[in-house]
Amino acid sequence: MRFVRVMIPNTETPVYGVLEGTQVALFRGLPWGDPEFVGVAVELDELKVLAPTIPSKIICVGKNYADHAAEMNSSVPEEPVIFLKPNTTVIADEDAIVLPDQSNDVHYEAELAVVIGAVAKDVPVERAGEVIFGYTCANDVTARDLQAKDKQWTRAKSFDTFCPLGPWIETELDPSTLNISCEVNDEVKQSSNTKEMIRGVHEMVSWISKVMTLIPGDVILTGTPAGVGPIVAGDSVSVTIQGIGTLTNPVVARS
Amino acid sequence: MRFVRVMIPNTETPVYGVLEGTQVALFRGLPWGDPEFVGVAVELDELKVLAPTIPSKIICVGKNYADHAAEMNSSVPEEPVIFLKPNTTVIADEDAIVLPDQSNDVHYEAELAVVIGAVAKDVPVERAGEVIFGYTCANDVTARDLQAKDKQWTRAKSFDTFCPLGPWIETELDPSTLNISCEVNDEVKQSSNTKEMIRGVHEMVSWISKVMTLIPGDVILTGTPAGVGPIVAGDSVSVTIQGIGTLTNPVVARS
Repeated sequence: MRFVRVMIPNTETPVYGVLEGTQVALFRGLPWGDPEFVGVAVELDELKVLAPTIPSKIICVGKNYADHAAEMNSSVPEEPVIFLKPNTTVIADEDAIVLPDQSNDVHYEAELAVVIGAVAKDVPVERAGEVIFGYTCANDVTARDLQAKDKQWTRAKSFDTFCPLGPWIETELDPSTLNISCEVNDEVKQSSNTKEMIRGVHEMVSWISKVMTLIPGDVILTGTPAGVGPIVAGDSVSVTIQGIGTLTNPVVARS
Repeated sequence: MRFVRVMIPNTETPVYGVLEGTQVALFRGLPWGDPEFVGVAVELDELKVLAPTIPSKIICVGKNYADHAAEMNSSVPEEPVIFLKPNTTVIADEDAIVLPDQSNDVHYEAELAVVIGAVAKDVPVERAGEVIFGYTCANDVTARDLQAKDKQWTRAKSFDTFCPLGPWIETELDPSTLNISCEVNDEVKQSSNTKEMIRGVHEMVSWISKVMTLIPGDVILTGTPAGVGPIVAGDSVSVTIQGIGTLTNPVVARS
């Protein structure tokens, strides 16, 4: 199923719904809770689509495709490398990525995002699927110049608007062999497949759950393939993942 | 004023109160909201003290005391270095720090914690005080071996229980000249003063707000002075800050 989070026109209340064709069947509650359908279906076009979750945390896996590690002049790490983005980075499909004054080299990074559906601590790899709710598209926007300067990646990854997520959560999906691509102004910049991940989705969910307790709605970004590059004001950047859809965001300068 | 967050016996509802002497005057709502006092005062001893906030994010300032940068064989960075801890690290006064299996070298780090009281974006230094709600004690517990191995500090800083906070929030405090110390089993390990910070509280709140929007209840850890060292199962570690109080946590092995 496809779960969308939307704002109903003339309200300020976000609600979830299930997308079937062009219709959204709205419900009360959370997708990973006990949805109570309200018997109302609305055309998707009439709704503002929101980011599909506001996670309590966003955990990102670094250097998880060998070709990207190589283009960053980096070796594949012996153990996974993780970092965090604050949830103030999250924006929805069609929201604008705002370029900060502090950077002159902001890059896109197309990534498969895992949405957690249950409280998860010390989950064995073979049970990781049980705590995964679904998948969405993500763009791990990064100020590459600040990433190099700071050594720690936090500032470079943490500016407001630096985590487009969406457009929805797909729950029926095998994450192991999905085409993933990034286009800037309709030009393909990244084109790979999740089978090229060094460590797969279930392995990373398990590994992270042995460090920190995962909470429903939390998001794991699973790394980006080769082909990263800059975006500038006026660009439109799209992340497309097979079986999910396309997440598109315009890029704007700070006003 | 001192704001405590407590659990009333036989309930599962956390509530805030104002501590006066040994009495807690309970109220509905959030300290940075519009507290509605309920006319009930309870002895602090009868209450389980909770962490004073569950922040949407915890932003930490690295290498912010010159003597600590030196003991880590590191120079003082030209610009601030920040990193994040997930809010699943937060525990209260008297809660146990649990040593993870993955590390053999877990360290204490006494830090002054700033609690944010207003939505804050692009705040000038001279107005930073307006978005600060108050201050509490923090222990930025760190798996030093994993910090060195991973290069990125996230895993080392993100294990559950690795952010003791408390015991309460003090709102009437000048953060610029406070004695700060850490004791392990009553032996003083760190002893410094916040005047030794390379970048002060207001400067860091302003700087961070130019990267990410701060939300009421968010926490900024302002760095640790020299003297960091290991804790092992059976230890008791205390952070004391002048004008706030003492945050004490036992250290236990994983069961």
